Amino acid sequence: MENFNFYSPTEFVFGKDRENEVGALVKKHGGSKVLVHFGGGSAVKSGLIDRVKASLDAAGVPHVELGGVHPNPLDTKVYEGIEICRKEGVDFILAVGGGSSIDSAKAIAMGVVYEGDFWDFYSGKAAPAKALPVGTVLTIAAAGSEGSGDSVITKEEGMLKRGAGGDCLRPRFSVLNPALTCTLPAYQTACGATDIMAHVFERYFTNTTEVEITDRLCEAVLCTMVKETPRVIADPNNYEARANIMWAGMVAHNNIVGVGRGQDWNSHAIEHELSGMYDCAHGAGLAVIMPAWMEYVMNHNVMRFCQMATRVFGCAMNFENPAETAKAGIKAFRSFLKSIGMPINFAELGAKEEDIPEMVRKLNPGNGWGFQPLNADDVTKVYQIAAKATV
Amino acid sequence: MENFNFYSPTEFVFGKDRENEVGALVKKHGGSKVLVHFGGGSAVKSGLIDRVKASLDAAGVPHVELGGVHPNPLDTKVYEGIEICRKEGVDFILAVGGGSSIDSAKAIAMGVVYEGDFWDFYSGKAAPAKALPVGTVLTIAAAGSEGSGDSVITKEEGMLKRGAGGDCLRPRFSVLNPALTCTLPAYQTACGATDIMAHVFERYFTNTTEVEITDRLCEAVLCTMVKETPRVIADPNNYEARANIMWAGMVAHNNIVGVGRGQDWNSHAIEHELSGMYDCAHGAGLAVIMPAWMEYVMNHNVMRFCQMATRVFGCAMNFENPAETAKAGIKAFRSFLKSIGMPINFAELGAKEEDIPEMVRKLNPGNGWGFQPLNADDVTKVYQIAAKATV
Repeated sequence: MENFNFYSPTEFVFGKDRENEVGALVKKHGGSKVLVHFGGGSAVKSGLIDRVKASLDAAGVPHVELGGVHPNPLDTKVYEGIEICRKEGVDFILAVGGGSSIDSAKAIAMGVVYEGDFWDFYSGKAAPAKALPVGTVLTIAAAGSEGSGDSVITKEEGMLKRGAGGDCLRPRFSVLNPALTCTLPAYQTACGATDIMAHVFERYFTNTTEVEITDRLCEAVLCTMVKETPRVIADPNNYEARANIMWAGMVAHNNIVGVGRGQDWNSHAIEHELSGMYDCAHGAGLAVIMPAWMEYVMNHNVMRFCQMATRVFGCAMNFENPAETAKAGIKAFRSFLKSIGMPINFAELGAKEEDIPEMVRKLNPGNGWGFQPLNADDVTKVYQIAAKATV
Repeated sequence: MENFNFYSPTEFVFGKDRENEVGALVKKHGGSKVLVHFGGGSAVKSGLIDRVKASLDAAGVPHVELGGVHPNPLDTKVYEGIEICRKEGVDFILAVGGGSSIDSAKAIAMGVVYEGDFWDFYSGKAAPAKALPVGTVLTIAAAGSEGSGDSVITKEEGMLKRGAGGDCLRPRFSVLNPALTCTLPAYQTACGATDIMAHVFERYFTNTTEVEITDRLCEAVLCTMVKETPRVIADPNNYEARANIMWAGMVAHNNIVGVGRGQDWNSHAIEHELSGMYDCAHGAGLAVIMPAWMEYVMNHNVMRFCQMATRVFGCAMNFENPAETAKAGIKAFRSFLKSIGMPINFAELGAKEEDIPEMVRKLNPGNGWGFQPLNADDVTKVYQIAAKATV
């Protein structure tokens, strides 16, 4: 196990009706003027935004609002948010929505207190060091941004999708009410579930040895997702399954399952070019990329894929031919994704094989990193496997 | 899953040599005058206390010290600490040691800022609401106090062992260097491992249904302990196994594995009377009590014990007679405890069957609570099973 720091100071407020406590929570965490930041119409139509504003009013906390966050949140909205915050003297950003609203809120929170261009944090020119406090009311289990110090933003010019991260971006509080996710369409639910599993796999596939505790914690989240996801696809109103998935989504990405070990994140990087280019859902892109990546790198450590196959997907271990078990595990994962309604190849996603060179060019994987470092040729091959995958 | 709040704002600083950062950590977390609080001679003899003080000196943080914390920390030492802190203007308590030093530090931290008798928090007269900040340098994986808001203190007069808990008691930072645990005798190591597993079992045996994510997280910690504990008993200097156990010990008790579900804690309460009366190690008492408690309550939910047996101890499920699987799981647990050198009955612990009525009287389990609520008669029977247990 490698040395590490783990700091997850977010207050999680979990369960039915907890969004009504948001006014008190903002006050408790030092906010006196709030930007309520959200996405499309569903949070408005469902009455959630009104309930949140009523809670702020009841606590005597003044607020302004900025809606219209795009599913792959754009830099243009971030600039708009920064301007509003500065003009209105906002000192607390409250994101209501999923990873997009939360990531956009984090970008605004950094940008308000930064003299330069906030994009510096995403282009790697500057490291996040301070930000306004952020709180969240989560409406989809997926990105894990409610408990993480991460944020991903897309630069509209050129559709460049890039991430930034730092402990200063961890939300002060996050309200997780599973009931808010019961109205999600099955496709979005499945995209979210895929993203959660991908966050774990990015940590699971490591070259660090002797990490039993985090291996087992990873598998705990994955087994939970394998059990609970089909239940919410079959019955969107299954509160209990929604609750298990929602907490699993936080655990998957606040890094408690990833400390002290090397991590991969190549699948995320490879996927970002897909959703950057086609504006598809991140989870759907991951469903296409991640099993393809697994197939491509499997021989780097067959036994680790056997561990996944047996512990997560219940495959029998083939002791004479471990590679068969590893393949069976990857196949089980892809079949699982298909069963919950995810695309598994380019055609189903709406991507085009002829765009692969352009995506590889934008990704620019010159300095490979992760479980098995990948160069441009490797990434091309992963895209090619993904393009034609079947179950 | 039940509604819950989860707030674990401790900064964990994990790995080799990290205790040398303690001065900087105290400053970062607002301390300007420190009480270094520790137990017996080993932390002094090993040079750890000197390294900690050198780190404080290097950071320019003045400090006073109070050693001699008893393995079952006593109220008398807490009063002494409170007096020193008030006299010396201490604003940060740094515990160096295991659960005893940390629990004692938490009691002092509450007591310093409380006008009444600190024992009020342990007798149930007052709820912990504020405390001086506490930091820790952990030297044994066991109590989980490095990440929890809990503290257990023994009142010397009458040897009454009682607990207090609140988020204000969660340490600001905890330094976890697994190498510091390599010098522990096998018996203490095994006692710690037993305590870690017990912290999980107290959460695992619940009447709340539909808690797959926390069930799986519990099992992740338990499987890790089953794998890693025999390795450190066989080779005390196995850093990697020590590291896995040390992080498992934190995860076991900061409540990430126990949120949103009813918990038990009867075994802990029943054990406290043992270590209160005989001054034995808490973990050793748990090794005697917990399997006995399992046998006594098994029929309350046979399938839950089957889940433990199959997922944690790898027992084969007997579908014709599930109770046999449940019994096999409990037997496997007791055999495991025996294999790591733990006592499994009163004789091996040094307890006396004739003292059972006195322990039951002191425990006063009038209002049963937990997985299966127990009255005085039930508790008597658990002690009786424990008294005569064999493998």
